[in-house]
Amino acid sequence: MNSNNKKPVAIRAFAPASVGNAGPGFDLLGHTVSGVGDRVIVSRIEEPTVRIDAISGCVTNLPLDAAHNTAGKALLSLREHLQLSHGFALEIEKGIPLGSGLGGSAASCVAALVAANALLFEPQSRQALYRHALAGEAVASGSAHGDNVGCMLLGGLVLASADRLMSIPVPDELYCVVVHPHQILETRRAREVLQGTYLLSDVVNQSGNLAQLILGCYEQDWDLIQAGLCDAVVEPRRAPLIPGFRRVRQAALDHGALGGSISGAGPSVFAWFRGALAAQNAAPAMQQAFSDAGFASEVYVGPVAGPAAEVESCNS
Amino acid sequence: MNSNNKKPVAIRAFAPASVGNAGPGFDLLGHTVSGVGDRVIVSRIEEPTVRIDAISGCVTNLPLDAAHNTAGKALLSLREHLQLSHGFALEIEKGIPLGSGLGGSAASCVAALVAANALLFEPQSRQALYRHALAGEAVASGSAHGDNVGCMLLGGLVLASADRLMSIPVPDELYCVVVHPHQILETRRAREVLQGTYLLSDVVNQSGNLAQLILGCYEQDWDLIQAGLCDAVVEPRRAPLIPGFRRVRQAALDHGALGGSISGAGPSVFAWFRGALAAQNAAPAMQQAFSDAGFASEVYVGPVAGPAAEVESCNS
Repeated sequence: MNSNNKKPVAIRAFAPASVGNAGPGFDLLGHTVSGVGDRVIVSRIEEPTVRIDAISGCVTNLPLDAAHNTAGKALLSLREHLQLSHGFALEIEKGIPLGSGLGGSAASCVAALVAANALLFEPQSRQALYRHALAGEAVASGSAHGDNVGCMLLGGLVLASADRLMSIPVPDELYCVVVHPHQILETRRAREVLQGTYLLSDVVNQSGNLAQLILGCYEQDWDLIQAGLCDAVVEPRRAPLIPGFRRVRQAALDHGALGGSISGAGPSVFAWFRGALAAQNAAPAMQQAFSDAGFASEVYVGPVAGPAAEVESCNS
Repeated sequence: MNSNNKKPVAIRAFAPASVGNAGPGFDLLGHTVSGVGDRVIVSRIEEPTVRIDAISGCVTNLPLDAAHNTAGKALLSLREHLQLSHGFALEIEKGIPLGSGLGGSAASCVAALVAANALLFEPQSRQALYRHALAGEAVASGSAHGDNVGCMLLGGLVLASADRLMSIPVPDELYCVVVHPHQILETRRAREVLQGTYLLSDVVNQSGNLAQLILGCYEQDWDLIQAGLCDAVVEPRRAPLIPGFRRVRQAALDHGALGGSISGAGPSVFAWFRGALAAQNAAPAMQQAFSDAGFASEVYVGPVAGPAAEVESCNS
């Protein structure tokens, strides 16, 4: 084998956090958030298996069994699909708190895939990695929805159907503030409240809002983006589970937000703004509103056209 | 008054038929259909009222009382909103059969508005006419949804929310075939079957399909248009009311259709194609399929970017 073809033995990749279930895009629409994410170091190993060697950072009590770990499961799926003879060993460094609604499980999964992909002699497209990301995500959430992994793979605002990812162009000045309060949201409860039935008007309202949001992004029409950034279907059921939600969103609106809702399954709350300055000004007020409700928080501010997951370093 | 400012006393306008409830856009998305439509002659009268003088054409048993006629109601709404001192007299010439699912009530309403608007000293924008078209449409359908009137006002493929119209750019080669079978669909029954409840997955599927359809149109991506052109929510409930529906759609698909569904509340069935030739080739097969089910039919073929309503002639 020519040494130029030699691939490095270990690669570290970073995947940013994300705002999933963005506005009217429940299970469909997400965008990345700069400033926080997970890192995964993937090494190629001779054994035909996937092994998790270490989990460090802000979450450590995750399964070490690859089949039950989002990152591990994604690489098992990749290995099987490409019929790779070699295996992978992973070291996961969690930067995203668990159960925050910021796509933590998705980030580990995508960082692992991006690193492992860079180790292949024939790296796959991000679109081709999507199915494996979904397989990983399903381990954590019980169902395969691509709103978090999708935007991490492509960067920015992404519509994720069951089998493909679609980038949505957004105005450069579209900014997001997302606030993560230190409160525990029972994921089981967050799912329970979505059970039961919906009305045809829910179908029409959610479809219409999502369509307006997408049209607004394509046309760079701020009125349309504002009109579309509304989840009248899922949010009313989940918002009561997040103490302080309404006052945090109100704080955002009082500071010029186009709109805002729950990030992922919560408890994080996001809002969109026209311009970085407006977002930066609103961030302390949104944190203060959570504080008034009794919760400390972290806040992240960045463009909706946030970063994609990427390789950070290679050791050969 | 300067004679150059003098407006003609009678104006005739034409509004084309439409495919409402287009695919995943129930109550939201419609496009016009060339080759068939309604005409309305509107005259300015001194009396501060709206009067319907005549109804002719393929439907004549419509209310002559303006408040209960879609065209009359739309002009009453326009008069009131603009606080006009004069009134209007209408002659309606129906070209669209009643209960066909081709937007017949909407077409009379929009043709009347476009003609009356041209009689004003300060004509309104098409967007500004929308609210009055909705007021008219509500008389016929009991609820105000803008998928039919919206596309007639702007032309082409239009997303209609409760308070605004949005044109969606479509590829020039996107063509539609719509077949109107000679069968009676009970409108009451077509509404009844939509009652009851829906699942969250219905909300997500319909939203995701509509979003893909719109993205596909913007990106001129035929795969996306095809993927999005699917109504898995409303169509399954209404299709059993239309004898021959499945075989007509299958005939379209067998001739290369991107997809197809029910036009409006039915019984008309439409399908989209890439290219005029493909559409023209499929049209006889779709008619034959209705024929095999025991129904004669008319067929219309034209671009999805169909015509807008327009003034045809003026008599001063």
